[in-house]
Order: sequence, then structure tokens, then C-alpha cells
Amino acid sequence: MSAAPQDERLARVVLSRIGEPGDPRLTDLVHELGPLTVLGSLQEQAASRELGEDLADRLVAVDPALELERAARLGVRFVVPGDAEWPPGLDELGRAPHLHERGGVPVGVWCRGPLRLDEAVGRAVAVVGSRSATTYGAAVATDVGSVLARHGWTVVSGAAFGIDQAAHRGALAGRGATVAVLACGPDRAYPTAHRALIDHVADVGLVVSEAPPGCAPTRIRFLARNRLIAALSQGTVVVEAAVRSGALNTASWAAGLGRPVMGVPGPVTSAPSAGVHQLVRARDALLVTSGEEVLEAVAPAGTHLLVEPRGPEQPRDRLSPRERQVLDAVPLVRGADLVAVARTAGLSRARTQEALVALHRAGLVETALGRWRLRDGEDQLPLAGPGGADGGAPAVGGAGGCLP
Amino acid sequence: MSAAPQDERLARVVLSRIGEPGDPRLTDLVHELGPLTVLGSLQEQAASRELGEDLADRLVAVDPALELERAARLGVRFVVPGDAEWPPGLDELGRAPHLHERGGVPVGVWCRGPLRLDEAVGRAVAVVGSRSATTYGAAVATDVGSVLARHGWTVVSGAAFGIDQAAHRGALAGRGATVAVLACGPDRAYPTAHRALIDHVADVGLVVSEAPPGCAPTRIRFLARNRLIAALSQGTVVVEAAVRSGALNTASWAAGLGRPVMGVPGPVTSAPSAGVHQLVRARDALLVTSGEEVLEAVAPAGTHLLVEPRGPEQPRDRLSPRERQVLDAVPLVRGADLVAVARTAGLSRARTQEALVALHRAGLVETALGRWRLRDGEDQLPLAGPGGADGGAPAVGGAGGCLP
Repeated sequence: MSAAPQDERLARVVLSRIGEPGDPRLTDLVHELGPLTVLGSLQEQAASRELGEDLADRLVAVDPALELERAARLGVRFVVPGDAEWPPGLDELGRAPHLHERGGVPVGVWCRGPLRLDEAVGRAVAVVGSRSATTYGAAVATDVGSVLARHGWTVVSGAAFGIDQAAHRGALAGRGATVAVLACGPDRAYPTAHRALIDHVADVGLVVSEAPPGCAPTRIRFLARNRLIAALSQGTVVVEAAVRSGALNTASWAAGLGRPVMGVPGPVTSAPSAGVHQLVRARDALLVTSGEEVLEAVAPAGTHLLVEPRGPEQPRDRLSPRERQVLDAVPLVRGADLVAVARTAGLSRARTQEALVALHRAGLVETALGRWRLRDGEDQLPLAGPGGADGGAPAVGGAGGCLP
Repeated sequence: MSAAPQDERLARVVLSRIGEPGDPRLTDLVHELGPLTVLGSLQEQAASRELGEDLADRLVAVDPALELERAARLGVRFVVPGDAEWPPGLDELGRAPHLHERGGVPVGVWCRGPLRLDEAVGRAVAVVGSRSATTYGAAVATDVGSVLARHGWTVVSGAAFGIDQAAHRGALAGRGATVAVLACGPDRAYPTAHRALIDHVADVGLVVSEAPPGCAPTRIRFLARNRLIAALSQGTVVVEAAVRSGALNTASWAAGLGRPVMGVPGPVTSAPSAGVHQLVRARDALLVTSGEEVLEAVAPAGTHLLVEPRGPEQPRDRLSPRERQVLDAVPLVRGADLVAVARTAGLSRARTQEALVALHRAGLVETALGRWRLRDGEDQLPLAGPGGADGGAPAVGGAGGCLP
């Protein structure tokens, strides 16, 4: 397995330790000049005065080899550009716009878990959303996660309360791969109540962070972390997000990367769905209602074509409008003769006769002694009005005439 | 008040009585040649052979003057093109595509109620949906109807169970105008359980039908009726619609007329919302979550601009990213000196000092004996991670350092 040169890796360890995750002053410089040049100029205090001053106090006393050794004892490895495991999706951050003064290709990512990062995120979807999820939102996130997993897709999320947790659990329930991207070091657990979940993800999937082991989560690191969630997936699904939700920040990163953004709707009376509805209204997100619809949006064209759901076909679906018109004119209880049916239907006798024969063939009407009536049960078909086939309104049988 | 010539009106009465509502063979011919020519050729059996044959049995024994007299006794008047009350929106049906072999400008509409039809529908929105509505859908339809009414807009619907009923009731509760468009004659009530509702609408608003008094509703008349609902409004809102719902037929008519189609989302687990979600996914409908958003879509540009909902502003919203970074590095309980804060924040001492002064001015940090700490309560701010400002996760105070 190919790997980055060791001197570059060690330089990146130092830069990862002294820099802030997603500080574009550092990430963009490293992406452009390489880690050795940037670290050298920082050490010679030749870097941009501002960045140099900001990092001066942190530059002391970083021993990168010792860092890697300590990380390894925690089960953590450092994946950098040039490694076979480095996912190409992260490089695209070098072309994506910055948000909230965060951005750029990470100098490296710290990984804990058995999966190879590039393989784990080769077919991956981010499922994110509100921490204060409703039971509805959590159920949908679990279901979406599980459907993705069963189709061999990895679920990427942030291990937070609510939607994130539900998405990871859905993926695990579907026996699929899942990746938790943290704002703290990959050895830590935030929220602490999710220690067991995060450790479980590290056992079977991957825990990934731009922040080195030991780092605490800070607000700004969540913003930087969200860009990794977006970059490590082929699309982002938002399941419940209040108007100011951080999940919308992840959606913005995905949009900046040109990846599909999807939103699961909910009741308009539910505040945790308001942010999703805003996204869809602004045409910033595609509305999705199931894991299958997510796959259709992210999978290579044509590999996940959906059959749009339709109601069950009914006998009258196969009728021509004229046959329906005649059917409407056939009474239920006492039969009517051809002339009466034709008059009620507003059609000529010849055309009425023709339609009655077709309806008889379809088993919808019966005839005796020259009179026609509906077959039993046919009057139970609902009307095709507003509410159409979805209601239980009584049918109107054989009273179609407009003449009083 | 201007009115159509009496001979034309009487001819239209006959055509309305003998024809099927929305039969395009009749409506298109009358729209093109005028009612006198069409009626004359039908009487002389000179009309197209098919139409003439179909209507021959109905042509006998229609006395239009008597029809109008009988209608008047039922409180019903016949409104036709050329009347001052005729709404221009109906004429646009002459340019809209046919659906299910229905279409065209009605030969006239039978109206019951005190409002002038053209005035009632000058600013009107159709609110339609599933007969088997959920309590959620009914509540939203009532609310939308009420908001429209309070803004002086008329609510047009079909008086059916479920969403239609809720929309009419919302309009009435908002002391606004409402128009019920029926598939049966305007003197009849379908569903019969809505007799009181329909009569109340006729008392204060309008009951409208293309079918003359006495006519029964038939399935095909619901399809023709739906086009009137769409044509008598500036836009159509679908609140809950199953995949095969007739409300989607109304939405198709609105789309064919080039009027905005809107859909109210709901839980993806709710079958009565599935049709709406399909409309939005296909970009056939704009997602709306409130009456205000409906107004924004249908009102003349600029008259109903919405302020997008935002969460409440918080003190840290006004901070620069650097100030936030420093705030994250200030401990909550035991203070830290400038050097410690700067090291934790990963910023130079000068820039850290500058930020601390700004944070102090904003009341977010306090200082004593050269040490800085968060002010009480500041640690209660939620993190801006996924779930962002919408959750109740504990804040991470003053532990921002990446150095172990």
C-alpha cells in the first residue's frame, strides 16, 4: 500500500497539532506549497507574520514521531495526502469556497477503526440533522441509514445526539459501514454520553477527525468538522434541522462541493423541520422521502432508478373516458334499458351499447331481460374527486343524468 | 351591470342542460362559434355526427326560460360569458390543455350565493386535498384558509370531506370569502353530510357548478369540476394528497393554466402526504409551509414579501470568528492568563488581547487579577455543531487547546 514520504507525514503531524482544524490560512498554504515548506517557514518565522505569530506559542515542543507513537497506542493512525488510504473527496475541498473562515484540504485526518478510509467513503452518504430530533425524525434517520447500509453504502455523520445517532444506529442495524466524524480528537467522545456509540463505530467502522488525539471540541471546530462530513460523502441528507441548525452548515459545505443536498420533510408545525423546508423552498435541497430516493440522487446515473409509487390499479383504470361515463349512468339496484342509460350518459345509443358490451366484458355490469345494472361491489369504488382514490366516500351509482 | 344577450343566455342554458360538464367537443365548439350557432346546428342535426347523436336524446324538451325560472326559485343564477360577473380566469381554459378528455371554457356556471363571482375570485386561492385527511392536514388546511381570508383572499375548494371542508371552515373562521365548486348541481349537496356547510357557503359566499340544478355528481364530473377550481383561483395549494388523489388532478389543471401549484409537506411516514411529496420532488409544486408563503407565491410581485424565519439572535452572533475562537479558549471556573488563553486559542498574544477586550465589552467574559474567565451563564450557549443552536447539549467551556 503506497504511503506519503515519512518526512512529509511528520511535518503534517506538527502542522496538525499546532494549527486549528480547517484554518484556511494553514490548509491552503500546505495544499499549495507542501507541508515541509510551510513548516520550515513557520520555524524560521518566515511565514506570513499573522499566521506565524498566532502559531508561535504552539510551535514549541511538538515531537511528531512521539505523537504518532502515542496515537498508535490509542489505536489512532494519521492519514495524509499521498497515502493509499487518502480519499480523493477531501482534495476537492481545495476548490470549494470557505465558510465562516474555515476551509481547505485538511493537512491530515486522524482515524480510529478497522476500515480503510478511502474504501469506506467510496460510496457514502452523510445523514445529519438536529440534536433535538423528534421521534419521527429519529425514526426516519434510522430507516434511511439502514436502507443505505443494506445497499452497501456507508453512512457518514457526526455522532451527535438526535439525528446523527439515529443515522449511525440505522447503518449498524443494516450491517453496513458507518463513519463518525468528530470535532474533538478521535480518541475522545463528544458528547460523552455517546462514548459507547463512538467506541462501537471505532470497532466496526471508522472514527475520523481533523483534530489530533486529546483535542477538545470547540464551537469553531464543529464548523470545520462539518466540511469533512460533506467532503467524505457523495451527498448530504438533512433529516430535521431547525432554522439555525448546524446541519444546514453541513448542507452548505456539500453545496459548495457541488454534491447533492437532500432534505426530508416533516410536519410544517414541527420546528425541527423548518430548516429543511427552507432548504427545499430555496431549491438548495431535493426533497427525499426514503433511503431509496437518496440512493437515486447519489448513485451513478441509472443504477438506482426508482419506480414512482402508484396506488393499486383498479378495474376502472383500464376503461376509456366514454366507458366510464356509461358506467356512471348504470344504476345499481333496478336495471335500466339502453335508451335510459344512453340518455343519462349523454351519449348516442350506438356508442352506449358499445361501451356496455366492453363493461360487461370487464365484469363491471350485468344484464338481464334487456336491462343493465352494476355488478355487486362495483358501487364501492370511490369517486375520483379531490381526495380521489384515497377516501372512503360513498360512490355515486347510476344517477348520472343531467336532465332533471 | 352589463349582461350577455338574452338569446345567447337561453341557448347556453339548453347547452348546459344537454351537454356533459367539461365535454370539450361542446365547450370548444361553443367557445369558437358561439352558443346560438352550435345550438342551431345541433337542432338541425348539422353538428358533428358524433356529438349530435350523443346529445339527440337529451335535446328534447328543454325549456330554457323555465329552467332559469326554476333555478331562480332555488336561489340559483346562470352566469355566462358577456356577463359583468363572468370571471376572466374561466376564459383561460380555452387555451389550457385538456385532461382526461375534459376541458374548455364552460358554457356557463350556475351560482348560488350573495357574492359576485368575478369579485369573489379576483384574489382567490384553491386549497384542496385528501378526503381522508389526517388531523394534521385538516389543521394546516384550516390555518392556511384562515390566513388567506384574513389577508382578503378568497378560498376556493370542493366542499369534500377532509381538506376541502377544513379549508372552507378556515376561510369562514377568518371572516373571509369562500367559494365551493361542486360536481353536482349547485342546489344539491355532495357529500350529503355537508349539506349544512354547503348551504352556509351559499349564504355568505358562493356555491358554483358547471352542472345545472338537480344534476347528480358523477365521477367524470369531478374531473371536470376540478378544472373550475383551478381556473377560479390564482394558484392551487395541495394539503395532503395520496398518490392517486383527485387533488393532484386539480394541481394538473392549475399547472396547465400556468398558475402556481403549491404543496404542503408532511411526515414521510404519512400516506396522505405522499402525493404532495411527489409533486414537490418532480418540481411540479413549490413547497409551502404557511398561508403567508402561499400569499408570497400568488400575490403580485413584491406585495407579500416574507421575512425568512430566523432563530433568535444571540450575543455570539455578533462576534468575529477570531473572537469566537478566543471565547472558546476562556475557561469557565478558574480563570486563565493571557498567555494560556492565547496558546489554547492558537492565536498571537496581541490578537488574543484584542479579542478579549471585545468579548469583555460584549459582556461575555470577565477579568480579575490578570486572569480571564467566562461570565456566568455564557457556558449555557449550545454548540454550533450539527444540531447547532437547536439542541440542549452542554457547552464546552475553555478547553479549546489542541496541545495535549
